[in-house]
Amino acid sequence: MCKNCNYTIHGSKSHYGWDNSIEPALHAEAKSTIYFECIDSSGNQLTRESTVDDVRTLDFDRINPVTGPVFVEGAAPGDVLKITIEEFRPSGFGWTANIPGFGLLTEDFKDPALTLWTYDKDTLAPAAFGKYGRVPLKPFAGTIGVAPAAAGRHSVVPPRRVGGNLDIRDISAGTVLYLPVEVEGALFSIGDTHAAQGDGEVCGTAIESSMDVVLTLDVIKNTPLKSPRFTTPGPVTNHLDAKGYEVTTGIGPDLMTGAQHAVGEMVELLAARYNLAPVDAYMLVSTCGDLRISEIVDAPNWVVSFYFPRCVFD
Amino acid sequence: MCKNCNYTIHGSKSHYGWDNSIEPALHAEAKSTIYFECIDSSGNQLTRESTVDDVRTLDFDRINPVTGPVFVEGAAPGDVLKITIEEFRPSGFGWTANIPGFGLLTEDFKDPALTLWTYDKDTLAPAAFGKYGRVPLKPFAGTIGVAPAAAGRHSVVPPRRVGGNLDIRDISAGTVLYLPVEVEGALFSIGDTHAAQGDGEVCGTAIESSMDVVLTLDVIKNTPLKSPRFTTPGPVTNHLDAKGYEVTTGIGPDLMTGAQHAVGEMVELLAARYNLAPVDAYMLVSTCGDLRISEIVDAPNWVVSFYFPRCVFD
Repeated sequence: MCKNCNYTIHGSKSHYGWDNSIEPALHAEAKSTIYFECIDSSGNQLTRESTVDDVRTLDFDRINPVTGPVFVEGAAPGDVLKITIEEFRPSGFGWTANIPGFGLLTEDFKDPALTLWTYDKDTLAPAAFGKYGRVPLKPFAGTIGVAPAAAGRHSVVPPRRVGGNLDIRDISAGTVLYLPVEVEGALFSIGDTHAAQGDGEVCGTAIESSMDVVLTLDVIKNTPLKSPRFTTPGPVTNHLDAKGYEVTTGIGPDLMTGAQHAVGEMVELLAARYNLAPVDAYMLVSTCGDLRISEIVDAPNWVVSFYFPRCVFD
Repeated sequence: MCKNCNYTIHGSKSHYGWDNSIEPALHAEAKSTIYFECIDSSGNQLTRESTVDDVRTLDFDRINPVTGPVFVEGAAPGDVLKITIEEFRPSGFGWTANIPGFGLLTEDFKDPALTLWTYDKDTLAPAAFGKYGRVPLKPFAGTIGVAPAAAGRHSVVPPRRVGGNLDIRDISAGTVLYLPVEVEGALFSIGDTHAAQGDGEVCGTAIESSMDVVLTLDVIKNTPLKSPRFTTPGPVTNHLDAKGYEVTTGIGPDLMTGAQHAVGEMVELLAARYNLAPVDAYMLVSTCGDLRISEIVDAPNWVVSFYFPRCVFD
């Protein structure tokens, strides 16, 4: 539990998709600190006992539940919701999957695959990737957002200007996130917690892991904001940096193709060097490799680079 | 000069564009360490005395000279050229320009603009951006490559699988770069040195600055490589990290549009907060802001984020 929290919302108060007609789980005044129990993105379908067969039979109607919504008193369209991420309390178990049809390299990886992770939820020491290496952890919420103004149910999968499935690795403890409010009360929800992810989430999943989250919600009145923005309190890659990076590139007139090429080259390089199955390398790099746009001005060719932290194997 | 170098190539030995028929400036055996004098990307057209009028009248036939080429003995098509970046000796002067028609936000910034920088070439202390802030420096070579196999002259502007105008901020001291060789002797050249640049080089220019570069060239025989790759010896953003980041996002089905939106939002935010002309904010973020792909799998919307280091103003 949480000594400094004003409210707790249990994981049973979760919903699928975004819909501004969903009854609030809580009404809270501005500046409330709230403890959220978040279910993993499989909705508890994948567990410590799961096998790849459970990936094959995933029920997609139960994917990516989010805890909430919170009706924030005083929030109205045209305001900004200020979300201060206070703390994560991870569960110690996570999974990464290749789900056919989902991910950056769907054509190369058509079969389901599953990696299970256990990690020390207190120390958050790097998590073992089989016998091969260790992935540094940095918990964050993949899905964090408020309800869109448009009526009806909207899929949870794509992120929007009101947030949602942003999958931004740096929305971690200490970060302050600003979201545009489109409906009365904002209707804030959160879920899809990850123990680690690289920029891109390239295989489509991170280290997906149930955890509890503490955060403070506040309202900034009458402030225009076109899309989410955030501030981080310090460095964002300290956990990955120490040994430097192995970097591959994709060069050409299309950023998506460049990203696919750069990630494909890294998968090939790691698979060959460490004798990994390519799909295992693909899942690994999704948890810790970063997609960066090195240059986007030297027409007609842009450079997308994929940075893999050498500390994983060193 | 350089005590441990085997050769020096003066800036007078430069060429425009890539063409495998250009006479080598030097024949060097593998493992040679070479000192290159590199001219800035304006070909000395912009100086400490320049004004924005000099941007208007830039002669594009003299843009981006590269020093070389070096014929590396023993290098042949199908090999890899291994380039160990040893050291930069910067000049202490640099410039950043908005060149109409060039850059990520050409529609928003149609007029030429120029920022001149002076910096301490010995300490490399952060360089003053007028009265507003200070940009941390990290010298690197924007253009580094070998000659393409295809005959004729190829523009220096776009990078290719053999490298060239990669504008990758982390090809800095200590990095080892691997390039595929397409012609006998590789025909290596380097130029377009930068004192600082963010990932993306969003306004089209960095802190463009003449400097000398020391590097070692080696050949790895008969090794397939589809596109450039490199390894960094340690963290890549230590110089920017300390105070964290201000981050804007662009969310949607097109990565280019997302990048434009994220950068536009940051320009607007900094211009308003620090009372900067928008074009000045645009040039500033090009020298130190980083474009990252936060997620590229939550169809149909991807998230491109633009990270501006708070240390610049703090």
